[in-house]
Amino acid sequence: MTIETGTGPHDSVRAVAWEDDALQLLDQRKLPLEKNVLTCHQCIEVVDAIQDMVVRGAPAIGIAAAYGVVLAARKHFKAARKQWKDRIKRDLQALRAARPTAVNLMYAVDMMQETIVNLEEDDPTDVLLEKAQRFHELDILANKRMGQLGAALIANPCDVITHCNAGSLATGGFGTALGVIRQAWQDRKIQQVYADETRPWLQGARLTAWELIEDDIPVQLIADNCAAHLMRQGKVRWVIVGSDRIAANGDVANKIGTYGLAIAAKHHNVKVMVVAPTTTVDMTLYHGGDIPIEQRDEQEVLHVQGKAISHPKAGAWNPVFDVTPAKLIDAIVTERGVVLEPDTTKMKAMMKMTSIFDQD
Amino acid sequence: MTIETGTGPHDSVRAVAWEDDALQLLDQRKLPLEKNVLTCHQCIEVVDAIQDMVVRGAPAIGIAAAYGVVLAARKHFKAARKQWKDRIKRDLQALRAARPTAVNLMYAVDMMQETIVNLEEDDPTDVLLEKAQRFHELDILANKRMGQLGAALIANPCDVITHCNAGSLATGGFGTALGVIRQAWQDRKIQQVYADETRPWLQGARLTAWELIEDDIPVQLIADNCAAHLMRQGKVRWVIVGSDRIAANGDVANKIGTYGLAIAAKHHNVKVMVVAPTTTVDMTLYHGGDIPIEQRDEQEVLHVQGKAISHPKAGAWNPVFDVTPAKLIDAIVTERGVVLEPDTTKMKAMMKMTSIFDQD
Repeated sequence: MTIETGTGPHDSVRAVAWEDDALQLLDQRKLPLEKNVLTCHQCIEVVDAIQDMVVRGAPAIGIAAAYGVVLAARKHFKAARKQWKDRIKRDLQALRAARPTAVNLMYAVDMMQETIVNLEEDDPTDVLLEKAQRFHELDILANKRMGQLGAALIANPCDVITHCNAGSLATGGFGTALGVIRQAWQDRKIQQVYADETRPWLQGARLTAWELIEDDIPVQLIADNCAAHLMRQGKVRWVIVGSDRIAANGDVANKIGTYGLAIAAKHHNVKVMVVAPTTTVDMTLYHGGDIPIEQRDEQEVLHVQGKAISHPKAGAWNPVFDVTPAKLIDAIVTERGVVLEPDTTKMKAMMKMTSIFDQD
Repeated sequence: MTIETGTGPHDSVRAVAWEDDALQLLDQRKLPLEKNVLTCHQCIEVVDAIQDMVVRGAPAIGIAAAYGVVLAARKHFKAARKQWKDRIKRDLQALRAARPTAVNLMYAVDMMQETIVNLEEDDPTDVLLEKAQRFHELDILANKRMGQLGAALIANPCDVITHCNAGSLATGGFGTALGVIRQAWQDRKIQQVYADETRPWLQGARLTAWELIEDDIPVQLIADNCAAHLMRQGKVRWVIVGSDRIAANGDVANKIGTYGLAIAAKHHNVKVMVVAPTTTVDMTLYHGGDIPIEQRDEQEVLHVQGKAISHPKAGAWNPVFDVTPAKLIDAIVTERGVVLEPDTTKMKAMMKMTSIFDQD
């Protein structure tokens, strides 16, 4: 498959790929210490992979779901070529329900469903596969466009903080927040990247550090609780993060910790940039309070890489996303353009601009 | 020895104890999963134990150092009863240099050194041991006093957040921040304690959760990055923490993460209480900028309980304390009294009040 690791620039790594008539997912749960690829032949395997975080990152989840629809259509058409459009509905529902916060998942399933509705009675596999592959390609193009738009916002060479992983591994490729960081590094606008380790899943320690090290971009890990103290040293000028869902008013759901980071940034006059394709924007929700926040198993907090870290009787609270209000955000960067100091009016105007995703 | 685990109220656990003519330290590095006691017969063993975090928590470090002086005096008097006061100087210096931030360490060594200066030519062991044991006892009394003063500040039953471990294990016994939490729980003023897990050493997950569970006080662990999102839910009214050094103006050095927590608290109108005996107050430093902040090995961030969590080539930044400015602190609770909205004038006035430690 086309998943490449450790052999060249890391921006070419693909977390999601279609090869050998199946969906290939780079298992992100133990990266970079173990590198395994999970092959999905059935849609249900994709649902499980999304739920279990084999694949994670809002855009990557959306792309995996689009391929999942291809697998579902192939199976149901083979089994019952007259009823496949009915039978696939349960799969689409299972995909949508796999994780609640990242709206890219719903976007991708809706897009594939629209295509299905318009299909003739022939085997749908090729048409749907082409649609999914095109969606995947456009996501990468969107990331490259956002990389340029975001890097242009950084006025002077500085240090930046990123949270979780919004890189090649979280997207179709290249990355959202890490796309901006890659471009800004190339433009000599970044001196040092600080990566929050991002408990409980340690996406920063495991994935972001790996991506940046392989691309020779200087990165230092920090404990999540260290960011405010780091900002106080005065070298960090930007916090750059991705998003799982953006409401119509510019409120942003992202990995737990983003909200605290944005509060600390405001306190230190550090700017906050959110980088996400408009497949992440949900204009049906007025504000962030309406975004469903996924709660995951407390065992994710009580263990690190399978090892208990607390008392056997301990309990934990594990919301895996939080909402950062628009007023704490300086710039939302999408493939349609940049929204500074976001509000509903500006978000609506941005959503009317041309998108790479409209090409289709 | 008097270290008790799992057999009764946890407030009676002693991290530091003198028994069988030696210093017994409950090894806090793998608690609660492994319960080991380290016996120190030599002062250098105490220096190592402080450096390696067998014993941690500013007051507990101070008490361990006082006993370390006893061990040093016993050895040097035995070897050279005429020169022991000269020979002990190197040990006192090694103790002082073991960790830079917690000023209780310097306080304890200074106190013991004063006693040494006034000693006659007899065997100093008994006198010094009595001094160390009295210091230990007074620390527990100070904690109980602070427990009452701090609990009285909580107006209505609410949830609280604590960071790191400022409990029995961090002190002579009972605890500073956890002393207040114990008293407030007894007074029915606390509904739920949230304990930050406190990376990189996980003192919250390992030690605070353990102490509170054994005392049947409801505790939920959270990832450090979760606190701001939790505060936004509206139930948390207080952040209650200990300290490693307090400057004359009320700036507070404490475990990395305290500063970010205080910024988030201010943003949500949640109050911040710092609980520490006046052995933690350093009136020779005008403000927190003068407090030395210990940097520890990056491997502490790159590993969790001995297991690598990142890329082999990854680096990390690991300052283990930060400074919270007085303006973010609502109350400093000491055994001498409470300082609300601290500043230099109020701190000076507080330091003139009677202390339990003056009894000696």
